[in-house]
Amino acid sequence: MTARGKVYLIGAGPGAVDLMTLRAVRMLSEADAVVYDRLVSPEILQLSPATAQMVPVGKAPKFHTVPQDRINEILAELAGKGLTVARLKGGDPLIFGRGSEEATYLNEHGIAVDYAPGITAAQGMAATFGVPLTHRGLATGVRYVTGHRAADARLDLDWKSLACEQTTLVVYMGAANIAEIALNLMREGMAGQLPVLAVSNVTTPREARLLSRLDRIGLDIAAAPMRAPVLFVIGHVVSLCNAADALPFDLPQVMAGE
Amino acid sequence: MTARGKVYLIGAGPGAVDLMTLRAVRMLSEADAVVYDRLVSPEILQLSPATAQMVPVGKAPKFHTVPQDRINEILAELAGKGLTVARLKGGDPLIFGRGSEEATYLNEHGIAVDYAPGITAAQGMAATFGVPLTHRGLATGVRYVTGHRAADARLDLDWKSLACEQTTLVVYMGAANIAEIALNLMREGMAGQLPVLAVSNVTTPREARLLSRLDRIGLDIAAAPMRAPVLFVIGHVVSLCNAADALPFDLPQVMAGE
Repeated sequence: MTARGKVYLIGAGPGAVDLMTLRAVRMLSEADAVVYDRLVSPEILQLSPATAQMVPVGKAPKFHTVPQDRINEILAELAGKGLTVARLKGGDPLIFGRGSEEATYLNEHGIAVDYAPGITAAQGMAATFGVPLTHRGLATGVRYVTGHRAADARLDLDWKSLACEQTTLVVYMGAANIAEIALNLMREGMAGQLPVLAVSNVTTPREARLLSRLDRIGLDIAAAPMRAPVLFVIGHVVSLCNAADALPFDLPQVMAGE
Repeated sequence: MTARGKVYLIGAGPGAVDLMTLRAVRMLSEADAVVYDRLVSPEILQLSPATAQMVPVGKAPKFHTVPQDRINEILAELAGKGLTVARLKGGDPLIFGRGSEEATYLNEHGIAVDYAPGITAAQGMAATFGVPLTHRGLATGVRYVTGHRAADARLDLDWKSLACEQTTLVVYMGAANIAEIALNLMREGMAGQLPVLAVSNVTTPREARLLSRLDRIGLDIAAAPMRAPVLFVIGHVVSLCNAADALPFDLPQVMAGE
């Protein structure tokens, strides 16, 4: 019987090295092999042990260089050789990270899994721009959804439930569909003047941001030089944004906290 | 003119020291004064510099030992003396943490604020129990709300919008009102068999957990020796919970992932 390795499912956070948890750094330092997504920042990859085998699996928003089934197999193969495997993902592995799908597969194959949660992009955005996810009088809660859809699939979101102005709505991976999302939200009663902040590569040197409003975000994002994945924050809390320089156009009413 | 200090609004995470971010640890290490809530774990408080002035402000779920207005003043007074102030909160300061209220006050008084986001309790729960916040086929998104209400106030939640079985619903600070919350969700169509995981002090040595279902959680939590604040996770993702020992009663249909 071969020695069994293990897999650490690690949230690398939004990008900045100092937003990793102590646990994530420790788990990464123990790795014999590092299996990483395209969304993990180069600054973080550099923390991998010099001796570790580096295995890119290159997930991108619109295509998966390596299909999920094959990623599962790669993790099991490496751990099956007795290696300690760091599976490094952007953000948190259990929020739009498919970490639990990998864990289910590994558990079925008798391989131990442990997690390091990560700061998700919405939290990185909040800390960078001073935009709270909840705030008395502006948002009683927060909701994360994905704006991504599989090829040829319809965006299957419950618009009526989503169109709740007292809840901060965060849309992950929504660049391709934000115009349609905004239209559906307005159709269900959300105000067109509702402020929207779009960010990409938040907390990294490649960070980009755009301040807009629900009735213009589709046009604004099409004209903006932002690389996917883009995170959209929709709600009154965006009126607290401290980045006046994120403003693409003259929108004083948004900045005044309308 | 006196030298101006600054305030770091630091998310201490759910409790385990190793779930703090590198940034949080660094900011805390620079502190001349540490202003902390009751919910920050003793293990984390011990990381404060030995020379730092320790200022408990003791927020508890049902009463605020120090009112929010006074906390704002304390922070401004300390920073006004030129001190570097670490404002240490459980979880993330911008998710139910009132961090943005403190930041607004401090900014109005000309005091610089910087943030360290923190792993929120829902993420600590997810990593501990292998319960993802999103998962293909079980949850397309996640929503955080608070079940806390001010004295004499009604629970002002949009039940129709909340009763969405494809969204993982996380209720913070809900122990006192979970029976009413569950009843309202079932009234709007959520199934009574929907699994619910309740946790407190997650990721700490004082961790407690309870696995139940929507139609029993009110009774179960009343009988359970859990200390507030309690976090409730409601949704199909709870069927993936790896803690069979969290089961208070015989609920095989829930464990089978109904």
